Amino acid sequence: EIIQQAAEVFDNQLLTGKHVVITAGPTRESIDPVRYITNKSSGKMGFALAEAAAEAGAKVTLIAGPVYLPTPSRVERVDVIRAVDMYETCMDVVENGCDVFIATAAVADYRPTVTADHKIKKSTEEIHLTLVKNPDIVASVAEHAKRPFTVGFAAETQDVMAYAQGKLVNKKLDMIATNDVSGTNVGFNSDNNALTVIWPSGHKVLPLASKAQIAKQLIELIAIRYKD
Amino acid sequence: EIIQQAAEVFDNQLLTGKHVVITAGPTRESIDPVRYITNKSSGKMGFALAEAAAEAGAKVTLIAGPVYLPTPSRVERVDVIRAVDMYETCMDVVENGCDVFIATAAVADYRPTVTADHKIKKSTEEIHLTLVKNPDIVASVAEHAKRPFTVGFAAETQDVMAYAQGKLVNKKLDMIATNDVSGTNVGFNSDNNALTVIWPSGHKVLPLASKAQIAKQLIELIAIRYKD
Repeated sequence: EIIQQAAEVFDNQLLTGKHVVITAGPTRESIDPVRYITNKSSGKMGFALAEAAAEAGAKVTLIAGPVYLPTPSRVERVDVIRAVDMYETCMDVVENGCDVFIATAAVADYRPTVTADHKIKKSTEEIHLTLVKNPDIVASVAEHAKRPFTVGFAAETQDVMAYAQGKLVNKKLDMIATNDVSGTNVGFNSDNNALTVIWPSGHKVLPLASKAQIAKQLIELIAIRYKD
Repeated sequence: EIIQQAAEVFDNQLLTGKHVVITAGPTRESIDPVRYITNKSSGKMGFALAEAAAEAGAKVTLIAGPVYLPTPSRVERVDVIRAVDMYETCMDVVENGCDVFIATAAVADYRPTVTADHKIKKSTEEIHLTLVKNPDIVASVAEHAKRPFTVGFAAETQDVMAYAQGKLVNKKLDMIATNDVSGTNVGFNSDNNALTVIWPSGHKVLPLASKAQIAKQLIELIAIRYKD
């Protein structure tokens, strides 16, 4: 029955005429020309959402960090490396107007204060690295004068629900999707995922399924909440 | 004529009965369960060398950091993540006896002193990270009582030849292959490479070619020098 409902929604092309912007993958924050800080995000969830949104009729812009994935058909892809580049690209797109923003990217929260021009030599026993906060992309989108329906992701390893609820409120999001990445069968680099999706007046559990199936269900949920 | 010479050497199966150990790819040094420090090594050069060594008749052990590459046929592959794991794996293999060791891996020179058990929260404006030196794998191999013929790689962005010569002497290597990764058409993640190969009594330039061709030429050079 759920599958049929989903099929009906997709038949209805719920997002036709809507511009959906999705961020995906990690970012890289350079220490020097060869070394960088990054994280385990594969980009698979964001790419699956881009595909599902396009299938639901949306115009899709996918802003991707460095990942090893092909671009889904009918999706416009913009590749970025650093968090500050992803931030600027997102702000430009929001400034030009979009309807839904889904932030799946695992943006580096911090970057080195300086990037060395040349490869750091292995001379000293210790290196002291100072990292500064990167801009908070999804919070900046949600605060924008032309704010779209804004969906965040929370990948946590502890107190998952509490942190996700906190982010929903503090970042003024319309919806947040959360998973526990401390296990090995969901989340980062897995082909499967399980999400708990939270919005101000409710929540829904999307049980373990392929990222493609989870993406369709989440796009459906976003389309319904967006129309409310 | 060069191609014919190379073909003859490979026909001769110059490395038959020899055990060649090759390290490849980057390593990952965890900051917390999702964040890590790494570098731009794709592993392509090491994998090409493993294939070329197997074609020259060697038994090949390929000790690989996290890369997105298929294992060449007739090559035994051991996957590792951290520099300390790569170090221990290499020491075990050398302890058990091998003939040639080729260190193409871009091993992280430093690792965070502590790895946080849980994802670090974006609470403070700055983070101060202390990194400590990782063991020097190729130097440890060259110093080992059962030292094989030891070949290092030097990926530099400045004063390439001077640094490579210094490494050859300081690390007591038999040979070092060096390239300048500051350009974009060779080295990291490229399918092409150009090397200058240096040994105590001479050097040879391997001009720009595919990594597969460069690998065959370097394996030939190693086989010749090893027999001297």
